[in-house]
Amino acid sequence: MTEFSRFTPLVRSLPATVPFVGPETQERAAGKPFRARIGANESGFGPAPSVKAAMREGADEVWKYGDPENHDLRSALAAHLGIGMDRIVVGEGIDGLLGLVVRQIAGPDTPVVTSLGAYPTFNFHVAGFGGRLVTVPYRDDYEDLEGLLDAVKREGAPLVYLANPDNPMGTWHDGETVAAFAEALPEETLLVLDEAYGEMAPPSALPPVARLIDRPNVIRMRTFSKGYGLAGLRCGYAFGAPGTIASFNKVRNHFGVNKMAQIAALAALEDQAYLESVCGRIDAARQRIGEIARANGLEPLQSATNFVAIDCGRDAEFATALMGALVERGVFVRMPGVAPLNRCIRISVGPDEALDIFEAELPHALAAAS
Amino acid sequence: MTEFSRFTPLVRSLPATVPFVGPETQERAAGKPFRARIGANESGFGPAPSVKAAMREGADEVWKYGDPENHDLRSALAAHLGIGMDRIVVGEGIDGLLGLVVRQIAGPDTPVVTSLGAYPTFNFHVAGFGGRLVTVPYRDDYEDLEGLLDAVKREGAPLVYLANPDNPMGTWHDGETVAAFAEALPEETLLVLDEAYGEMAPPSALPPVARLIDRPNVIRMRTFSKGYGLAGLRCGYAFGAPGTIASFNKVRNHFGVNKMAQIAALAALEDQAYLESVCGRIDAARQRIGEIARANGLEPLQSATNFVAIDCGRDAEFATALMGALVERGVFVRMPGVAPLNRCIRISVGPDEALDIFEAELPHALAAAS
Repeated sequence: MTEFSRFTPLVRSLPATVPFVGPETQERAAGKPFRARIGANESGFGPAPSVKAAMREGADEVWKYGDPENHDLRSALAAHLGIGMDRIVVGEGIDGLLGLVVRQIAGPDTPVVTSLGAYPTFNFHVAGFGGRLVTVPYRDDYEDLEGLLDAVKREGAPLVYLANPDNPMGTWHDGETVAAFAEALPEETLLVLDEAYGEMAPPSALPPVARLIDRPNVIRMRTFSKGYGLAGLRCGYAFGAPGTIASFNKVRNHFGVNKMAQIAALAALEDQAYLESVCGRIDAARQRIGEIARANGLEPLQSATNFVAIDCGRDAEFATALMGALVERGVFVRMPGVAPLNRCIRISVGPDEALDIFEAELPHALAAAS
Repeated sequence: MTEFSRFTPLVRSLPATVPFVGPETQERAAGKPFRARIGANESGFGPAPSVKAAMREGADEVWKYGDPENHDLRSALAAHLGIGMDRIVVGEGIDGLLGLVVRQIAGPDTPVVTSLGAYPTFNFHVAGFGGRLVTVPYRDDYEDLEGLLDAVKREGAPLVYLANPDNPMGTWHDGETVAAFAEALPEETLLVLDEAYGEMAPPSALPPVARLIDRPNVIRMRTFSKGYGLAGLRCGYAFGAPGTIASFNKVRNHFGVNKMAQIAALAALEDQAYLESVCGRIDAARQRIGEIARANGLEPLQSATNFVAIDCGRDAEFATALMGALVERGVFVRMPGVAPLNRCIRISVGPDEALDIFEAELPHALAAAS
């Protein structure tokens, strides 16, 4: 025997794909660290000083398992959102929560609707539970809500994914449009509305919390990874109708949320002044990335996220070469994986020093890629 | 519509059970904190000072996602265990890894063998994927290896769970016996050998790493939660044959392991001197818990873990009353859930101050329970 023979047929059929290759893998291959880490939509601005202080004190607490009910964090989130605690579940990042939603709905061949080129980790989970992805092309670099609704109805799909603001393009629909989309969905279709970038979007991009909160077929997800600068701590949350949220308790890993994440997230939520200042810095960095792109003859897309997709004006081959040339010069960036989005490269915001390096290297990378 | 209608039949059939109620829930109910937290097999001795220092510095790093390959930690573990990195997977605690193993093997009605009263979180995962638990009673407070083997063969089970040393009883088989059990299993049955308490067991309790490492049907699991004192950081690992370990990559949440956990675990592994000193303190605390039990007319079981099961000499009702009386007096302890194990209460080791409180309160609790 060289292989264990009784993994399920589904598991045996899965490829050993990785949704994303980590920058560390590229650094090891190159034998040197990146000079600018602006590829994974992390926040180079980091968390608040108050949060770092809480984490340093938290080092004395992590011998304990975290509270499996995430009581204090859910309670603070409830106050923040103006809803009851029973409408909130905390998980190991949005990635973890997405896996739990997919698991609860998708089995073999279940049709699941998403946009063609949208978040790969969602697709990874759908494949991992045997679901069948039904993809709808973007329309002019926006997720196509009409197309998504049509696909849901045509397929009788029980699950549809929408990121607003969108990743990897950074574009967004206004909250009214998104709410109307949610309300137009059949009751038998659950919408995962991924609002990972919500804090740094125009307020009008987010439907009011109250608007969708009582719909059992809508789950909204947010995270401490982006605006709050805590990607490495893996802490996200979902909110919706109590019955829908309660179902997570049947399958979640109850002690899965890290105690340090609980401590840091609570501190982060309490420091809204820092969040506000960071959102200002994110916006300034978006502007600057746009200016750098234009100065080099490239066209930045509008963004409501912590990154800017830059239309490189040619095909995927060129964008791939440009990304490669940047990576070679120590600038970690990524790009969308699917046409026609993959004519773009995607630059995450970061502090001035990181963008200085991007600005200095982009002309050389363009010359190398041409 | 008040409930979303298209969760899978399996999910709809699951109870909203929680494997363990957290001590924080009890504290909130009581309106005051526990005076001694010795119920969840955490390490009240905490992590090494060197690890705390690494975590404090790590606060500046958690804006980044953790390396999805867990390269540095796997590399250090590989050196520590004397095996190749391709034989190791890091996950969100053993709990997370157990979920992934179950998911890869158990579908509706798949028979899965474990001991009656063994680790509830494993059972939670089996139920969560629709598997059918086949339980084998303990024999004289030891997991019954012969009984487990018989059950595996009778049921044609593809998966069997064994914790050695055992939780919740603290007993253990020697490494030779465990290895012989693993080798006697059919090739079509995967053994999860949970060695969460391995570091604090007599070395003879663990089969040599090399003995089982090439068997595709054996996965051994260890953790940074117990000996290393990092329960709250959720970091465990599994090792085995490369093909079996590689399969985790098909389903695991690649960015799921927390950056802070990677930093702390690496520092913990590097400080073996601290681990050794803590194991000495754990052993002394086990002795002391035993003496406290005997001084009160109760019988401690031998333990190779960081807790001691105390036989209260009567029935489950009495043990439950005793546990309740301790909890009421501010001493957080737990007890096994199933007869005949539930004639015991289970006391985790901890620093002197915690055991002082246990020692002072046990006579009062006994009086109250009698």
